[in-house]
Amino acid sequence: MSTTQHRHLTVADAASALAAMRAARPLVQNITNYVAMTISANVLLAVGASPAMVHAAEEVDEFVAISSALVINIGTLSPQWIEGMRRAAKQAVALGKPWVLDPVGCGATKFRTDFAVEMSRAGPAIIRGNASEIMSLAGAAGAGGKGVDSTASSDAALAAGKALARASGAVVAITGETDYVTDGDTVVAVTGGSPLMPLSTALGCALSATVAAFAAVRPPFEAAVAALAVYGAAGAAAAARVTGPGHLPAELCDALHAEDAGMLERYATIKTVEEVNV
Amino acid sequence: MSTTQHRHLTVADAASALAAMRAARPLVQNITNYVAMTISANVLLAVGASPAMVHAAEEVDEFVAISSALVINIGTLSPQWIEGMRRAAKQAVALGKPWVLDPVGCGATKFRTDFAVEMSRAGPAIIRGNASEIMSLAGAAGAGGKGVDSTASSDAALAAGKALARASGAVVAITGETDYVTDGDTVVAVTGGSPLMPLSTALGCALSATVAAFAAVRPPFEAAVAALAVYGAAGAAAAARVTGPGHLPAELCDALHAEDAGMLERYATIKTVEEVNV
Amino acid sequence: MSTTQHRHLTVADAASALAAMRAARPLVQNITNYVAMTISANVLLAVGASPAMVHAAEEVDEFVAISSALVINIGTLSPQWIEGMRRAAKQAVALGKPWVLDPVGCGATKFRTDFAVEMSRAGPAIIRGNASEIMSLAGAAGAGGKGVDSTASSDAALAAGKALARASGAVVAITGETDYVTDGDTVVAVTGGSPLMPLSTALGCALSATVAAFAAVRPPFEAAVAALAVYGAAGAAAAARVTGPGHLPAELCDALHAEDAGMLERYATIKTVEEVNV
Repeated sequence: MSTTQHRHLTVADAASALAAMRAARPLVQNITNYVAMTISANVLLAVGASPAMVHAAEEVDEFVAISSALVINIGTLSPQWIEGMRRAAKQAVALGKPWVLDPVGCGATKFRTDFAVEMSRAGPAIIRGNASEIMSLAGAAGAGGKGVDSTASSDAALAAGKALARASGAVVAITGETDYVTDGDTVVAVTGGSPLMPLSTALGCALSATVAAFAAVRPPFEAAVAALAVYGAAGAAAAARVTGPGHLPAELCDALHAEDAGMLERYATIKTVEEVNV
Repeated sequence: MSTTQHRHLTVADAASALAAMRAARPLVQNITNYVAMTISANVLLAVGASPAMVHAAEEVDEFVAISSALVINIGTLSPQWIEGMRRAAKQAVALGKPWVLDPVGCGATKFRTDFAVEMSRAGPAIIRGNASEIMSLAGAAGAGGKGVDSTASSDAALAAGKALARASGAVVAITGETDYVTDGDTVVAVTGGSPLMPLSTALGCALSATVAAFAAVRPPFEAAVAALAVYGAAGAAAAARVTGPGHLPAELCDALHAEDAGMLERYATIKTVEEVNV
Repeated sequence: MSTTQHRHLTVADAASALAAMRAARPLVQNITNYVAMTISANVLLAVGASPAMVHAAEEVDEFVAISSALVINIGTLSPQWIEGMRRAAKQAVALGKPWVLDPVGCGATKFRTDFAVEMSRAGPAIIRGNASEIMSLAGAAGAGGKGVDSTASSDAALAAGKALARASGAVVAITGETDYVTDGDTVVAVTGGSPLMPLSTALGCALSATVAAFAAVRPPFEAAVAALAVYGAAGAAAAARVTGPGHLPAELCDALHAEDAGMLERYATIKTVEEVNV
């Protein structure tokens, strides 16, 4: 998986990816949880993509074919949805469309851990989760890592993320106070965001949808880094305008809608923290 | 389908319909998509109606009976929901209650196009969609029109809308930069709204719910025109108070809650653009 | 059911319960309706709890085991969800975890009334509803009360609530202009909130989720009284900052996030209005 071309990604690259994504206005298909649907759609519209929420097994083959990217999020998983998720992932891979896996709550129950593992093996371009989810998925997928640990250090999650990337072939994005993107060798750290963001529901899920939008116009690693920087900068800009979490989703959408290179430069950083020795 | 009594509808008529609707506070049953549920409920509450989200086949017969109007929206269609939609539509027709069809995404997949066609033949009082959906539905229903066309001109959509109205017996509302309402002969144009509205998800779906509320107190053509004017005026008033799409849903609800004849007069226009020659 | 220790609950007790809840940051499992999911999650995050939306029968046993409290809300009931609700309630009772029943729309159809009755007998710690729902549930459960009555007086609802509490063994919270909490003998009245609150969807549902969060750290009666006071005070504080219902959910979350003893003292009252004679 290791490549070298993405080692020195900058916020200027993120700004360029943002412009390219807006110009393409990619149709992003979301098979996501009930809580995340509205904010995911609003985030995608605000940042400049075109969202659709389509999940029925009866129509996902056709819909993936007209979409530019796909996100599969298992937040409110139920058996009725699983077949649509499987088919959509298979079709995306068959048609060469990038898809993003968001393994929400992986580790909490066998039902969702098993399905997250299954999906991680179904060819996602990018897997995005928090430290606990990534560690759990890496462990359950037999990729290494240390399993769920509520006192998980960033380092431990990073090791799990790299193992998961190598095992799955996906770029792995671990989001938290600092976000990390890895392909198993190179690791890029992205900062931005605000401590208020985890106090507003499903903003991580909407980030996964944003990653999918960028994956429509950039290779997975670059897409993940750009999306995290764009989203983190908007989150930080939005947080500067509120006094609590209540108005954060609305301000986040306004910031994504207004975002430019200046906002990115001011509120986000991108830094390569590990490079593969070739 | 052609009638003459609605030829000269004005914003004063819309204001009168708004007052009548608020006085009646109609119970509007929504069988709608997951993304649209919350904003539909909030829009209905703000404008003065009483929303309920009830879709299970096991209870729709009883619930339609206590409702004043119904909206069926296929945005996040799945087989589990279809039976409830069919029964609710049938019961509404049997009991003489108006129902509104929102054929979201018609044309995108065979699954939803087929079901949209089926529903368009199940007696809706009003069908509301964007140009692409109306053209697709008209074409698929064999009503004429030109099928989906991403470069669809308003004129082409209008011709499709008129054909669909004649074939289905429903009043057809085509919303976009300018909205059109037609019964197949007469065409009324309604202006209002804002370019920001399409950047906030499900505002079209919530409009369909609003149309249903007005259909509880006015005949379908007049209801559609009044609802489009009321909603468009509120949307324009709301857009004047924001700098991006983030706060638009909240401002829209505030505007709908505060709406009066003055807001309607200031922000909306209603104009008969085609009249049937009798 | 009658106990005397909660007779003289005060807003200081509510403030103490709020501090204890925030310190515990309880994981609250929500099996709730589609409309209520996002606002329930945001309210729980804002007030200081940790929400999860998990409903599949395949995983509720495991998830209840790691949760501190559970809310079951039947607002958008469908057969696919019933088994998950049954299993979750059973598991909660088996593990001694408190769960809250929100019988949304009880009385509107036989389907939901029957299931609300079934759930009221499945060991909820607290049942929260509006006057109409509580009267309907009490009547249908054979507990007495007068059945649904749209002109229901508070007194009639209170009598039904007391009967329901005695029959079910649950503490019953009836919310409206004034909220009442009863165990069948003692009745406490809680004030707060705003007439704008019923104009924003699912704020009652999100209150039920808040009640569950407090039930994780206090006995049911005290938890219900504290949650109603905390929520009512935040609602009143939020309403003072808006001119319509649109921004109320966001302001409510900000108020819950900022809430302290001063806000409680200023905006809520708690008063014992009936005491059991022992």
